[in-house]
Amino acid sequence: MNIVISKIKKHIENNYTQFIKNFLRLLECPSVSTDKEGIEKAVDVIVELLKEVGADVKTYKIDGGNPIIYGEIKGDKNSSIMFYDHYDVQPVDPLDRWISPPFKPRIEDDKIYARGASDDKGNLISRILAVKTLKDSLGELPVNVKFLFEGEEEIGSPSLPKFVINYKEQLKADVCIWEGGGFNKNGRPMIYLGAKGVIYVELRVKRRGDDLHSSWGTIIENPAWRLVSALSTIRDIKGRILIDGFYDEVIDDPEAEELISKINIDRSEIEAMTSNGELIEDLPLPDLLRRWLLSPTVNICGIYSGYVEKGQKTVLPSHGFAKLDIRIVPRMHPDRVLMLLKKHLAKFGFSDVEVEILNHGYPAARTSPNTPQVRLAKLVAEAVSSKEAVVFPNIAGSGPIYLITDILGQPCFSFGVNHPGSNIHAPNENLIINNFMKGILQCSLYLLNFDSWVRLGNAPYLNA
Amino acid sequence: MNIVISKIKKHIENNYTQFIKNFLRLLECPSVSTDKEGIEKAVDVIVELLKEVGADVKTYKIDGGNPIIYGEIKGDKNSSIMFYDHYDVQPVDPLDRWISPPFKPRIEDDKIYARGASDDKGNLISRILAVKTLKDSLGELPVNVKFLFEGEEEIGSPSLPKFVINYKEQLKADVCIWEGGGFNKNGRPMIYLGAKGVIYVELRVKRRGDDLHSSWGTIIENPAWRLVSALSTIRDIKGRILIDGFYDEVIDDPEAEELISKINIDRSEIEAMTSNGELIEDLPLPDLLRRWLLSPTVNICGIYSGYVEKGQKTVLPSHGFAKLDIRIVPRMHPDRVLMLLKKHLAKFGFSDVEVEILNHGYPAARTSPNTPQVRLAKLVAEAVSSKEAVVFPNIAGSGPIYLITDILGQPCFSFGVNHPGSNIHAPNENLIINNFMKGILQCSLYLLNFDSWVRLGNAPYLNA
Repeated sequence: MNIVISKIKKHIENNYTQFIKNFLRLLECPSVSTDKEGIEKAVDVIVELLKEVGADVKTYKIDGGNPIIYGEIKGDKNSSIMFYDHYDVQPVDPLDRWISPPFKPRIEDDKIYARGASDDKGNLISRILAVKTLKDSLGELPVNVKFLFEGEEEIGSPSLPKFVINYKEQLKADVCIWEGGGFNKNGRPMIYLGAKGVIYVELRVKRRGDDLHSSWGTIIENPAWRLVSALSTIRDIKGRILIDGFYDEVIDDPEAEELISKINIDRSEIEAMTSNGELIEDLPLPDLLRRWLLSPTVNICGIYSGYVEKGQKTVLPSHGFAKLDIRIVPRMHPDRVLMLLKKHLAKFGFSDVEVEILNHGYPAARTSPNTPQVRLAKLVAEAVSSKEAVVFPNIAGSGPIYLITDILGQPCFSFGVNHPGSNIHAPNENLIINNFMKGILQCSLYLLNFDSWVRLGNAPYLNA
Repeated sequence: MNIVISKIKKHIENNYTQFIKNFLRLLECPSVSTDKEGIEKAVDVIVELLKEVGADVKTYKIDGGNPIIYGEIKGDKNSSIMFYDHYDVQPVDPLDRWISPPFKPRIEDDKIYARGASDDKGNLISRILAVKTLKDSLGELPVNVKFLFEGEEEIGSPSLPKFVINYKEQLKADVCIWEGGGFNKNGRPMIYLGAKGVIYVELRVKRRGDDLHSSWGTIIENPAWRLVSALSTIRDIKGRILIDGFYDEVIDDPEAEELISKINIDRSEIEAMTSNGELIEDLPLPDLLRRWLLSPTVNICGIYSGYVEKGQKTVLPSHGFAKLDIRIVPRMHPDRVLMLLKKHLAKFGFSDVEVEILNHGYPAARTSPNTPQVRLAKLVAEAVSSKEAVVFPNIAGSGPIYLITDILGQPCFSFGVNHPGSNIHAPNENLIINNFMKGILQCSLYLLNFDSWVRLGNAPYLNA
């Protein structure tokens, strides 16, 4: 039996109550991105925890945004590992759908319910506690650790690019472990090697004057119809985007394709995650995964015009808008996609449709599954779970991972503590406590093996 | 000088203050269709006024709806004239855009401002006061008069069809003067000979489950996209409806065409009425009028799906809906139009789009300009105004006039007291006081000449 791993496991077991307490303290902070007081509370808790584990901590404010918390701890070896997480959380609406108050964490059965439990306070705390575990149980930290925690992830990370560019040298590490990742319902680790990029725009149509009586609809332009007509030129009913050149930069990524072909999850897992949402097209699983993970798309997040209360009102609306998010994949550039969208609207005669850019967005990012950093993640996760890991080329969602991969030039992946029923961005968000503890162990072992693995190709601490 | 006309004019002049008082009493009743107390107050005022002029009055409640007030006065001749008006009014929202409270009538310059001033309390009161004028000034009423006043016009007249069918015999008259009508900005009388029919539906799309994270947009159906795709098959960008068979029953009406060709109003009047709303197509005036008044159409009154607040939320909506009013012209039947719409959606693969019928609607109605009843209206209106009347084949809007023309089988038209800046259905609704007084005179002279005109082709009381 490996004494080092035993010590680590024992330490996590013995500190179970204390670790949960640390987690609950952070969950109690109502750190919705726009709640300055809640944000401050969360920053205080995190800074205190980081100082407790011996980190050198600073907070940075960029253009009056929420603080970026940056902490560094020197380790015994030269390798450096960065953790990216965020301490801000989604708004709690609809509040009446929560069984218990979102900022009064409730433990029931094997889960903790609270806003932010999975997104992203669980990973954030588990990673600090992994460092604490190594230091307390082994008396040493085997690598340098850099914590990069932001408070604006849920509002598009406006401060992060400037921070990363300004502090590029200081942030250099051998790998970055991103937020997210977890275990599926069978306990198999889920590892993600990237994210899509995203752009967010609002299409707006406005007529001169106020709402008119709808009897004018025969001769006066109706912004709702204009919007519908313009939108209908963008996408066909099979979901294919009709903007000229939209797919030009989407190229085959053999590594991503190979990962997709190896994703042997059950179709019912996708069904469960989408509450059995109707599929646009009923495809075989690999094709479905390919479209889900490797395709760009344009999605209507919201559309509004005119009278939308109960019953009838006969009105010719004065304006209308649609909110669109455009998910892009590697090689696609936000500037070019926006240019293509505007060109498309002009080509089809919709130059009256204004394109307001709500988030100029960022590109996608992916790390190769063949990097030693990712291969170690798989080894460690499988050792901790005794289950085969599922490795995704990227999440279907987005995150500014390009800052790590493209600006800092280092590999980046996610493994963590979440599960498919986490209810991220929804009422009754929750985390499975056992996953939280497994996540601490997983992180500890990753840190412990890293230097030896990248230098010598040897991971000595996998099996207890 | 015609003594009879002089007497009538003098009486109206002498009772100016009293007539305004009567009008203000009704305007003070907050008789929004859904306000039971306001409705009751208005009913009391009207019943009292009708009794004052010697009418035999009854109120009828159909299926718990707002009372229909029916009043009859016997006259000296056998001919009968019916007045249709409504005492309910539109809601007052947006209240903050009113300069003075909507149910505290304000007199400024030459206008009375109040909700319902034009739609339709001005016409309603002016017609009662015409009867009063004749009786008080001449000591007699030259024809039988039937008042049909409802309190549900603004919510689609749900009680009226049953009432008309049940009391068909009692309601028989030689003509019905409908609500609406008025004078344009140059003081020319505006006479309308009918209305379009209308149907109101809501198209609904629902996905299983709640809102999802928008990253599922690549593979899961988005109700907003479904709605946009379905709607876009219904109408082209020039406003032409693409439903198979939609125009099949629209046939040329030479009388309507001739009226259109004679409408010599200024293009700027249309521009003013629409606050310079952008035209779908820039057509010559007669074509514009033809499309406005003689074409059926489908209009989006409202559309909603997903996130429509400020800023961004990346969501795949769980449902969406669009509210459509369908304006139909003579010969089109609501049942058939609804059937065509459903068939169209099915044909294009949108059987998941539910068609909820909010108002099953009614057909259009038109009265020939060559009926003696209409010809007299034109003569009287032109005599009162000393201006050439503008005769429209119908209003662009709708009203259940078919109950009069098709069920009772009698001619029906509108002439009245409104003006293009009345702000009907909008804040600061108003009426020009001079039009109100002209309307009383116009109605008086119509009643006075009617029997002689229809029997002998002679209208002796036109020129003072």
